[in-house]
Amino acid sequence: MRSDLERFFSPKSIALIGASQDLITISGQPLSHLLNHGYSGKLYPVNPRYPEILGHKCYPAVADLPETPDLAIILINAARVADILEQCGKKGVPYVVIFTSGFSETGGEGVALQKRLTDIARQYNIGVIGPNCQGMMNVADKVWAGFGSVFFTQEFPAGGVSMVSQSGGFGFSVLALSSLDGGLAFRQMVTTGNEIGVSTLDFVDYFIRDPQTSMIVGYIEGVKDAHRLLGIGMKAMDAGKPILMWKVGNTDEGQKAAASHTANLGGAMALYKAAFKQTGIIQIDDIQDMVDYGRMFRCGKLPKGNRIAMITVSGGAGILMTDECISGGMRLAELAPETVEQLRAFVPSYGSLGNPVDVTASIFNDLALIRRTLQAIVDDPGVDCIALLNASLQGEIATKIAAEIIAIAKTTDKPIAAAWSARDVMAKDAYAALDEARIPHYKSPVRCGRAFAAMSGYAEAKRRIEAQRHEQPLVLKKTQSKQLLTNLATDVAEYQAKKVLAEYGIPVTQEELATTREQALVIAKKIGYPVAIKVQSPDISHKTEAKAVKLGLNTDAELAAAYDEVLANAKAYNAKAQLDGVLVQEMLRGGTEAILGITNDPLFGPAVMFGLGGIFAEIMKDVSFRLAPVTLSMAHEMIAEIKGYPLLAGARGRAHADVDALADAIVKLSALAVDLKDQVAELDINPLFVMARGKGVKAADALIRPKIKS
Amino acid sequence: MRSDLERFFSPKSIALIGASQDLITISGQPLSHLLNHGYSGKLYPVNPRYPEILGHKCYPAVADLPETPDLAIILINAARVADILEQCGKKGVPYVVIFTSGFSETGGEGVALQKRLTDIARQYNIGVIGPNCQGMMNVADKVWAGFGSVFFTQEFPAGGVSMVSQSGGFGFSVLALSSLDGGLAFRQMVTTGNEIGVSTLDFVDYFIRDPQTSMIVGYIEGVKDAHRLLGIGMKAMDAGKPILMWKVGNTDEGQKAAASHTANLGGAMALYKAAFKQTGIIQIDDIQDMVDYGRMFRCGKLPKGNRIAMITVSGGAGILMTDECISGGMRLAELAPETVEQLRAFVPSYGSLGNPVDVTASIFNDLALIRRTLQAIVDDPGVDCIALLNASLQGEIATKIAAEIIAIAKTTDKPIAAAWSARDVMAKDAYAALDEARIPHYKSPVRCGRAFAAMSGYAEAKRRIEAQRHEQPLVLKKTQSKQLLTNLATDVAEYQAKKVLAEYGIPVTQEELATTREQALVIAKKIGYPVAIKVQSPDISHKTEAKAVKLGLNTDAELAAAYDEVLANAKAYNAKAQLDGVLVQEMLRGGTEAILGITNDPLFGPAVMFGLGGIFAEIMKDVSFRLAPVTLSMAHEMIAEIKGYPLLAGARGRAHADVDALADAIVKLSALAVDLKDQVAELDINPLFVMARGKGVKAADALIRPKIKS
Repeated sequence: MRSDLERFFSPKSIALIGASQDLITISGQPLSHLLNHGYSGKLYPVNPRYPEILGHKCYPAVADLPETPDLAIILINAARVADILEQCGKKGVPYVVIFTSGFSETGGEGVALQKRLTDIARQYNIGVIGPNCQGMMNVADKVWAGFGSVFFTQEFPAGGVSMVSQSGGFGFSVLALSSLDGGLAFRQMVTTGNEIGVSTLDFVDYFIRDPQTSMIVGYIEGVKDAHRLLGIGMKAMDAGKPILMWKVGNTDEGQKAAASHTANLGGAMALYKAAFKQTGIIQIDDIQDMVDYGRMFRCGKLPKGNRIAMITVSGGAGILMTDECISGGMRLAELAPETVEQLRAFVPSYGSLGNPVDVTASIFNDLALIRRTLQAIVDDPGVDCIALLNASLQGEIATKIAAEIIAIAKTTDKPIAAAWSARDVMAKDAYAALDEARIPHYKSPVRCGRAFAAMSGYAEAKRRIEAQRHEQPLVLKKTQSKQLLTNLATDVAEYQAKKVLAEYGIPVTQEELATTREQALVIAKKIGYPVAIKVQSPDISHKTEAKAVKLGLNTDAELAAAYDEVLANAKAYNAKAQLDGVLVQEMLRGGTEAILGITNDPLFGPAVMFGLGGIFAEIMKDVSFRLAPVTLSMAHEMIAEIKGYPLLAGARGRAHADVDALADAIVKLSALAVDLKDQVAELDINPLFVMARGKGVKAADALIRPKIKS
Repeated sequence: MRSDLERFFSPKSIALIGASQDLITISGQPLSHLLNHGYSGKLYPVNPRYPEILGHKCYPAVADLPETPDLAIILINAARVADILEQCGKKGVPYVVIFTSGFSETGGEGVALQKRLTDIARQYNIGVIGPNCQGMMNVADKVWAGFGSVFFTQEFPAGGVSMVSQSGGFGFSVLALSSLDGGLAFRQMVTTGNEIGVSTLDFVDYFIRDPQTSMIVGYIEGVKDAHRLLGIGMKAMDAGKPILMWKVGNTDEGQKAAASHTANLGGAMALYKAAFKQTGIIQIDDIQDMVDYGRMFRCGKLPKGNRIAMITVSGGAGILMTDECISGGMRLAELAPETVEQLRAFVPSYGSLGNPVDVTASIFNDLALIRRTLQAIVDDPGVDCIALLNASLQGEIATKIAAEIIAIAKTTDKPIAAAWSARDVMAKDAYAALDEARIPHYKSPVRCGRAFAAMSGYAEAKRRIEAQRHEQPLVLKKTQSKQLLTNLATDVAEYQAKKVLAEYGIPVTQEELATTREQALVIAKKIGYPVAIKVQSPDISHKTEAKAVKLGLNTDAELAAAYDEVLANAKAYNAKAQLDGVLVQEMLRGGTEAILGITNDPLFGPAVMFGLGGIFAEIMKDVSFRLAPVTLSMAHEMIAEIKGYPLLAGARGRAHADVDALADAIVKLSALAVDLKDQVAELDINPLFVMARGKGVKAADALIRPKIKS
């Protein structure tokens, strides 16, 4: 796969295959846009019907071009695209953008047509963008190689934001609105359509390497190479380039016919969110998020912690921003007593010395007030970032206050931003000065708080990832389980599934398989009453439904009777079922029921899930996911992040659960998931009993669906 | 209390007491703003220091005014406000706005000063607005009676939106941004400050009566007369005026020392949300919500159901809007087969006939396409409202498409709106035409979807309220319980609490109080083993903690031993506890544990809570609240709205629970809450066993905290 994408974004020459003289049509637009927006390379329209277009010589065929262009754009109908692509291949064209629709998105024969394109691209090592896309815009280098309304527009200011969008029309609208109305400055943007060649993540990967990109935005419906998300996310984090990801298509993911709860709960969105969380990728939901977060990150500073202090000139807005910051995971900084004493010297008595500090409208009389207050807050070691809430301050005084803020911001590495509600025309000079000094400002305290929370979350992810970098994930290589599961075409019965768990060091209930009543009695004696018994069969996954389970058997007599009963029930449930025997198992007492599991997603690879008891997981969907491998500290995060966590931490008079043993089991399950990624499709440990602190965990039931079956 | 607020908003004469010649100061601004913005009534500055201000004769004192002004504005320092207010009272001034700060918001002596204002206002029947507020702006009648940056601004377009804000500075910023930048057109706005006289809800009430107000916006931190919310919300619904409520201060509500789970879970925000839900008040979170929803409601149509159809010219945006609509409670309309057939005749084959209908970029070639598609969708009886997703269509074609939309919108009562991402300058004529025709349009499909969902939710609330209007809430009047609870200063022991429940018809466990071991044995025989026993004492609210409970006693011997044990434990736990006896109680088997409760809020009055088992309610906070009285259909809503509802509806192989009996118990508890609103502060039924369908419910434990104790 080609990865010299600077050649794509800054081609020295472009062929426009199927270019039209009708400059309003899709095939006519690109040449005209390239020319209008100042493209400085060579342009080669290719069309046997014209001698020239817009003064550029028109070539009858690709083969006739006087040189091999860096980029070709295909503007012809679907049926002929494959032939043209092949001609490009023969000519050695490295990158080809295909605008044409009518491929896999239409189903039917479009799928076959697209397959042919894929084959040709591979054969000739062509980097194909599209088909069914709207092209690219390199704002910095003035390469407007696309079509659509936005290309008829004026120039955009160039900056450091690079964007890749799976939607063409909407993607370019987002560019236009966030740039011209929102103040984001773009470097380049590309739309990817059906992605038979260069994928969304290929572009993100390139943007990370591109030295002039400072922030990356992705608009995605879904990525086909999702397993790369972790690596790419980490790389972006290392490069200090925030990735904002707008992932759409959250509702109605469609029902899966999964055997396990884990796979049912681990829909695409859950795994995307896990990947984003693990790598500090910031999820956004609207254009305004892009604009607001972009503005915040442009300040070039990151807070060292999540404690925010606010300075306000009127009470109301402080409450608003507090709501937003706290719900976004930040905390209100507690000001040091010395800071409060300092403030007391000049903040009016009817103001407030707590956080938010209310300096009141007195700043009208005393401009120094804002400088002295801000300086005191900046100097407080308990404050990580500062918001100024300036209401509608406007005109002369606004300009002066902006200057005070800028002067102090220059002396500190703590991020400072302002919620400032004056309309643009009323505080023009103040806003321009802030922009120049890269001090973010927002009309609404809600938006300012939200942007602070996004940046704080990113900084926290960065610290977390740096701390975890030295943690090696547990690696286990086991052979027995691998053998057992390879080529297995049925779900794995409980007793075998637990042997798999045991091989990876996950504690399981004491148990043995009996094939006669007498054997069962001997096993029960060894384990000690009470015991549970469960018929084991690869053909009966739902043992309880088959009445093939009996719990709490206290005596030999009870056991003997139950043994016969469960076998009879199993046969009645499924006469043809292969019966491996009856599992005699210790009964666990006390503890909290949890669920652990693996879903091995075709796009993401193996992911590990944790949740509490069946109802919490299944009905409340209160679970946490991580893509494997999961380190110990990540396992602890997974445990603490569910809503039901207080149940493990001693809520309602319970004993503190053995969270360490639970985290250990998660890490081992993750190692299992990685080691058996070619064998295991789904795995549930349900329930896993989490005993009191120091007493460990035990898997009481388990289900494995091998990959070959799924 | 005065309620002729039209006199306040449109005064024929205004006195400005303490007016200053320095027009930049707070006391100088109002006169100058009133004059600059075209106030047409009489203005009377009052200040002994000046002969005149801005050409208006200045009076030495209120008593000297030549007439009684409709409105006085007090602009002097806190210490002198009371005297001036009294002078206004003597002069007979009906409305007084007090800008001055330094009252209860500062604590200390400010509280006493404010108390004096309240007394004077009451004595003279003055409608006081403030203190600590920023005044009022009647946009329609050009009465700019306030101060602050926004008053230095140009005129605002007049319209039908009336707003009341508890924040002064921020409130007026919201007006400016949503009006001049967002296109909302206001009628009037008032800030209320400390609200010693006319309250936020008084203003909302007035706006409902004001014939020229079409939409009401409130920005509130909290209302002191919250019990009025239900009545006012219903009145607004009847008047067809949507109320948008921006309630801030959601985080850190402060810990309450409540005895019951219900009161702990029923913080202010839970009750505000209940009130909003019950009345169709729309909660908003930012300025953009106001602007977007205001635009949507301006269309003057309400959908008959929640089914939306979308017509798009490019795929991406449809997914975005679908996400937003579905998460906002709407559904994608399923198009009738006839509609699809109709569409097939002209929608291009590479488009999509499903919903969202993708007509593709072919509209460039065939303008009639949009009209024919829209007409077919409008005619489909399964569609309640329609969104057009026009990407960045601009210029000439945009204007033509707008005209097509407008023509069809005129012929239907189904709401039609557009997500249209072209920048304002690129589709100026199209947007102007849509505005003129009151067809809402949004730059972002997310915002469009959100606004549709808000309108759809409002319309659904309206239908629900209309259906519930004919339901009479159950009214019960009981005497025994009232007697028991009046003047009681301790929590009510379980056996007594259950007698209270039983008097209101809520089923309780079969049980009797024993004061001797022998008596206990007799009772157990009557009830039948197994039984539970619980020591009853007004001084031991946490029986389990005191080990004063034994469950599952199966024989006389077990009971006798347990009887002695629990009494000994109770005495060991609290030697001074008054012991009423030991409650002998049937053991319930099966069923689902629920929690019902009452919190009798000082501001809202009694509210009823429902949730599942202790953990679900306490840790997951999965509960629903309604302000009493609760009708039967509301009780069913409460049950269905918790996340854990599937547990009652037969999830995980459970029997369907007796939801009818549960709803009946909620209705009776609501009747109890209303009947005992002067006696009961908090009540928990925890657990209430909900048995299988037809088997009823039973309260297994209960706690009542009387009002006098709380």
